[in-house]
Amino acid sequence: MTQATQPKTHSTTAAFEALKCKECGAEYELKASHVCEFCFGPLEVKYDYEFLRRTVTRETIQAGPNSIWRYRPFLPVATNTPIDVGTGMTPLVQSNRLARRLGLKKLYIKNDAVNMPTLSFKDRVVSVALTRAQELGFTTVSCASTGNLANSTAAIAAHAGLDCCVFIPSDLEAGKVMGTLIYNPTVMSVHGNYDQVNRLCSEVANTHGWGFVNINLRPYYSEGSKTLGYEVAEQLGWQLPDHIVAPLASGSLFTKIYKGFQEFVEVGLVDAKPVRFSGAQAEGCSPIAKAFEEGRDFISPVKPNTIAKSIAIGNPADGVYAIDIARKTNGTITSVNDAEIIEGIKLLAETEGIFTETAGGTTIAVLKKLVEAGKIDPEEVTVVYITGNGLKTQEAVQGYVGEPFTIEPKLDSFERALERSKTLDRLEWQQVLV
Amino acid sequence: MTQATQPKTHSTTAAFEALKCKECGAEYELKASHVCEFCFGPLEVKYDYEFLRRTVTRETIQAGPNSIWRYRPFLPVATNTPIDVGTGMTPLVQSNRLARRLGLKKLYIKNDAVNMPTLSFKDRVVSVALTRAQELGFTTVSCASTGNLANSTAAIAAHAGLDCCVFIPSDLEAGKVMGTLIYNPTVMSVHGNYDQVNRLCSEVANTHGWGFVNINLRPYYSEGSKTLGYEVAEQLGWQLPDHIVAPLASGSLFTKIYKGFQEFVEVGLVDAKPVRFSGAQAEGCSPIAKAFEEGRDFISPVKPNTIAKSIAIGNPADGVYAIDIARKTNGTITSVNDAEIIEGIKLLAETEGIFTETAGGTTIAVLKKLVEAGKIDPEEVTVVYITGNGLKTQEAVQGYVGEPFTIEPKLDSFERALERSKTLDRLEWQQVLV
Ligand SMILES: [Zn+2]
Ligand SMILES: [Zn+2]
Repeated sequence: MTQATQPKTHSTTAAFEALKCKECGAEYELKASHVCEFCFGPLEVKYDYEFLRRTVTRETIQAGPNSIWRYRPFLPVATNTPIDVGTGMTPLVQSNRLARRLGLKKLYIKNDAVNMPTLSFKDRVVSVALTRAQELGFTTVSCASTGNLANSTAAIAAHAGLDCCVFIPSDLEAGKVMGTLIYNPTVMSVHGNYDQVNRLCSEVANTHGWGFVNINLRPYYSEGSKTLGYEVAEQLGWQLPDHIVAPLASGSLFTKIYKGFQEFVEVGLVDAKPVRFSGAQAEGCSPIAKAFEEGRDFISPVKPNTIAKSIAIGNPADGVYAIDIARKTNGTITSVNDAEIIEGIKLLAETEGIFTETAGGTTIAVLKKLVEAGKIDPEEVTVVYITGNGLKTQEAVQGYVGEPFTIEPKLDSFERALERSKTLDRLEWQQVLV
Repeated sequence: MTQATQPKTHSTTAAFEALKCKECGAEYELKASHVCEFCFGPLEVKYDYEFLRRTVTRETIQAGPNSIWRYRPFLPVATNTPIDVGTGMTPLVQSNRLARRLGLKKLYIKNDAVNMPTLSFKDRVVSVALTRAQELGFTTVSCASTGNLANSTAAIAAHAGLDCCVFIPSDLEAGKVMGTLIYNPTVMSVHGNYDQVNRLCSEVANTHGWGFVNINLRPYYSEGSKTLGYEVAEQLGWQLPDHIVAPLASGSLFTKIYKGFQEFVEVGLVDAKPVRFSGAQAEGCSPIAKAFEEGRDFISPVKPNTIAKSIAIGNPADGVYAIDIARKTNGTITSVNDAEIIEGIKLLAETEGIFTETAGGTTIAVLKKLVEAGKIDPEEVTVVYITGNGLKTQEAVQGYVGEPFTIEPKLDSFERALERSKTLDRLEWQQVLV
């Protein structure tokens, strides 16, 4: 609980009513489970949309807190006092300078690089997962993480007073490790890549009574990403955009933005319209992009090798669903290399004052590539999702930014440096990457 | 401009009408100047409070954008399209776990560690200063900074398309240097401490036609901090707290929170009540605390030597005004050492999931010290201002946090580590500091 002034106007009756298999439709009780017993398909939360249509309006949402919890009836928690540390309602930045640079006209950045409390979109899914974990009686929470999820789980568990044990690959960026340790959880640093970490965690989830936010709590957890759809619709004045571009790791974020838009149409909060969904991957870990480009309906797992570690999932659980959405919405999925990712980080910082991590650099670089390929119309209202903060992956851009002029605290020393700065061709720095 | 749905309901008539000397009362035109020609006192913005009382209500504020610009009539800008990148309206976190640990009952953290876009309260003052700089016709903006201000000026200048040159001491933390360079401003790294940087900048301000946000634009700039007063009052349900604790660098933030509360009383938005003002400094740079403790009315400048670099100002411009406020509100000003600062950072992270920089660690450590000395009543509604993010000063806590358990991706390797973690006395880590 946070915002001291937070109103409590929502109904206490929850709209979520079952877990349902995405493949065969079998229904299950609302417990901590994520796989269908019949077909091994993933479970998803099912809602009573008729109830939501009757009880939720634009006004009831706007009267709610300034966080993801203004959409509480659409989220799988029963309590009306969820864990609220101000998560969500990040700015939708009209990005005219970046738009001009790229040749677009109606470009918005959804800036989760400043999401609360730990500066990534993961705060959304973790706020939902830990609230549900408490409802289900868990006292220890856990996760398999590429970094941002560990930060978020450790921080929000600390606030909520839950015990916490997180699992990370041992080669993570320093900022992501420190950004976890500071909250004093137990941290397991695993010799291996994310997919190996994830497999280990699945075993641990079966043998310990822990709530793994992205394993046994995954159906609840992943619903938190729908708020990235809801917020954009609300911030555009209760309208859907024409085109969205988002990064793909497991593919879950992408599918949940789609579900968020669909639900708002379903309950009458926005008008239906086509929205194109385009996805971004790093070339060094692009199993979804490869399957899309090759017209396949299945993912061939890969071993990640990219600086974009936070989205480096070689065996993405929701990859096939992401491909399906990109195809049926006339979007695309493509990848960019590490040099382009660094350029993407710099481009967004220089034009819009937003410092994103490698995942965001990937998304901006893919945006640029799609515009150059004519795959985004300049007139489309385009929303780009920036999902994490650059302060956590500083090593990625070290050596690729300009350097300070070192001077003495004297006017003539400054004047000499200023002259040098005027003659220095700024492009020199950019050529490092070419 | 950001929130796409941002309403524009405020009057376009501005309430600011002159610059006025804080010492002799002489009035000046609303230009880029900061020192009285008669007595060399600092200039401050003067408003027409009668106009504000007639035109501003709680409702007009609440109908405004979800940023500092909901208080635009109280800020010194004439435009009704200020530079808005979502700055302000950070969470006021009810901090029950930290409160219990300290023996308090009604504790709130005002969390500007997640302020937008660059994760410190400086985004408030810079948003105001650069909006005013554009109105005054400046095309190049600049600042003398201990780090956070450089981050903020470079980022918001990038978004607004202003040229930018920032001055920093050469011993800044890596995260603050990278968090500036990424936006591609000109960076002058000065061999010297902040006070030397500041003196150099005063000379440059006189010889170049640049807008220095904290020198010739300082009267406008500093008004941005009033929003930290306004927001707390609004978030507490249009009431003032009983006691606030804030860090002291130049002393400006402290005096402007006070001014913010006073103005809300003056125009009838909240009821008048006594609010105690307590200030926090680092022992290695505590000229204001020393003067307060010794009952002096003047500051003796010091040479800074502390890990809390962002508040290490040895010759604080508004120090005497801060002392005056602490005295007349029955507050106090005190300091803590570097080991206590690190403990403060960890305490806040472990109990509330908020990772702050050294300035925030200083403030939490002072809060603890004041509670232990009986200088905060457990029943007081106490608000602690956290002004910056820990990801920027990671070196300060390196070596003082726990370490990950390094394991193989196998269940038995995990089980062995888990056993070790249970037997490991967590207090070991804390003893590093004792
Ligand atoms: Zn099934
Ligand atoms: Zn004067």
